[in-house]
Amino acid sequence: MPSPILISLDAMGGDHGPSVVVGGVRDYRKRHGGEGVRFQLHGDEAAIRAEMAKCDLADDVCEVRHTDKVVSMEEKPAQAMRRGKGSSLWNAIDAVKHGEAAAVVSAGNTGALMAISKLLLRMSAHGLERPAIVASWPTFRGVTAVLDVGANVESDAEQLVEFAIMGEAFHAAVHGVARPTIGLLNVGSEDMKGHEEVREAARLLREGGFGLDYKGFVEGDDIAKGTVDVVVTDGFTGNIALKTAEGVAKFIGALTKEALTSSLLAKAGAALAYPALKAMSAKIDPNAINGGPLLGLNGIVVKSHGGATAAGFGAAIRIAVDLARSDYLTKVSDSLNRLTTVLEQPATPGADAAMETSQ
Amino acid sequence: MPSPILISLDAMGGDHGPSVVVGGVRDYRKRHGGEGVRFQLHGDEAAIRAEMAKCDLADDVCEVRHTDKVVSMEEKPAQAMRRGKGSSLWNAIDAVKHGEAAAVVSAGNTGALMAISKLLLRMSAHGLERPAIVASWPTFRGVTAVLDVGANVESDAEQLVEFAIMGEAFHAAVHGVARPTIGLLNVGSEDMKGHEEVREAARLLREGGFGLDYKGFVEGDDIAKGTVDVVVTDGFTGNIALKTAEGVAKFIGALTKEALTSSLLAKAGAALAYPALKAMSAKIDPNAINGGPLLGLNGIVVKSHGGATAAGFGAAIRIAVDLARSDYLTKVSDSLNRLTTVLEQPATPGADAAMETSQ
Repeated sequence: MPSPILISLDAMGGDHGPSVVVGGVRDYRKRHGGEGVRFQLHGDEAAIRAEMAKCDLADDVCEVRHTDKVVSMEEKPAQAMRRGKGSSLWNAIDAVKHGEAAAVVSAGNTGALMAISKLLLRMSAHGLERPAIVASWPTFRGVTAVLDVGANVESDAEQLVEFAIMGEAFHAAVHGVARPTIGLLNVGSEDMKGHEEVREAARLLREGGFGLDYKGFVEGDDIAKGTVDVVVTDGFTGNIALKTAEGVAKFIGALTKEALTSSLLAKAGAALAYPALKAMSAKIDPNAINGGPLLGLNGIVVKSHGGATAAGFGAAIRIAVDLARSDYLTKVSDSLNRLTTVLEQPATPGADAAMETSQ
Repeated sequence: MPSPILISLDAMGGDHGPSVVVGGVRDYRKRHGGEGVRFQLHGDEAAIRAEMAKCDLADDVCEVRHTDKVVSMEEKPAQAMRRGKGSSLWNAIDAVKHGEAAAVVSAGNTGALMAISKLLLRMSAHGLERPAIVASWPTFRGVTAVLDVGANVESDAEQLVEFAIMGEAFHAAVHGVARPTIGLLNVGSEDMKGHEEVREAARLLREGGFGLDYKGFVEGDDIAKGTVDVVVTDGFTGNIALKTAEGVAKFIGALTKEALTSSLLAKAGAALAYPALKAMSAKIDPNAINGGPLLGLNGIVVKSHGGATAAGFGAAIRIAVDLARSDYLTKVSDSLNRLTTVLEQPATPGADAAMETSQ
């Protein structure tokens, strides 16, 4: 029997608040059984209890912690840090800080979630400006984790290695892959390609002894191919790659829809092919892959998309539970300590020679 | 009547050599008339003449310049520069250098084309490591030019402004837009987003007086939306965005194909919708948007995809002709001179104040 854990939820976050959050709990339990998993819901008690009644959930599964205060979706991070104390978002994170909850899930304001998480939990990785965000990317071979997708605009070699360590542990915990493969996103696969930061990160990953299955450089089209399990990049490039991909997917989706409604014949064809097309879009349904963990904190924080459905929120809960039940935090902490040691060592002659031949 | 011009072609480049290059000339003439446009074909005379006979093209349209020497697709740029003299690629570029031809088109080895173009024609833009490559990106609103997509891995503010100047002049010349709009690719649209290079480039574009219609920052999904006509970014980010997009488009294409052949019903539906789906894929056919100019040189060089069809090569010829007939080179040269003046001026107090408030 799995160990019992408590997951803390910001019940007021996202576009739909308690209906999606409580619905997410029901959905998670329906799909995954939810044995040994209890929830602590922060927010308006009356609204939460009304949704619990609809979903047939009682206090043995959902403990309610009332607060009137809410961080709005528009609030700036700095404002949220100053004024957010006592809000559903703040209290949900605070439960992780005090060891009451094993993880927190919120569909609320991303900037506020990052800022308050950093304030309350502190960063575990050195030099990270903010937590790294992981995107789960549907590919020909399943799901690839891409990080960072937007929090850290400038990332040096050390931070890229931190992303690799955290992304690997995340992928192992959530996707059950024993030894996830890792690639560094670059403009070519040869050793001398790219700027200094990626080349130095590649050297550290090859020589640092982190026990990672590092496969070398990968290119943009390797993401959708699923060439590796974890694609590591700086937050600027990662954010632009992710949003560019979303834009292209929407564009092709709209063109396809337009084509399939452009004539009577096309409409008839689309009707016949409807079940197959529907099954296909389920494979790239954002709700199925919802839930982006904020990595690099002393605690597990999972961001759900603000517009996610109950099923989507349930998927984010699944990620939080899997991370909480795994050895994610200790594994990352050990590897980050190893990285600190490697960076403090003067480069060995052997390592230098290896670097010279590779350039 | 348009002014008569000569376009120089590397007849041996690409996966198919003379058949696609000569076929491209025929296709260009079929689509665009080709009045006043003559071609100079460099490569194996017998092979070129055999294709000319097939395509019913005579010496009044295609002048042949024989050479036995060819730069292979595998040759490294440095090797090509040392050993490429007298090859079809080299001679085709040399014709532009000596003012014989108004532009050159090659489907050959990209690295060699860049290196030899830079060697023979020299860069017109300061500080560019190599020519910038433009990708023509199909969007909801037509075609957006994205640059640089791969040549310059690290680009400072000055180079980003150079891309904006060249991309704008290219888009105006090739897509006939009088005043193309310009955006800088970033991770958000607020002034304080992104790293220093993009923020400084934004300031120069706002205040430099280049006469550009600069619209501010755009995000990854704005590319496919067609929010602006020209998207400016560094070669690292641009290359990754382009290849990521290609990967996603292939992935969705493969999923759709799989869905539409997954059952008898789906196959029947696909058959009915076939004309509509075919018309749709024409909109994102890489051959229709083939032809990436190498910008920043003292001369017009257009790269065709190595695997392009004759129609694709014809599209690349069209770009070369449009650029050659436009005021592209003088317009870019004027704006680059203006940039040099702006960069040499000490920052004015007014500009400083504007920058401070924007941060």
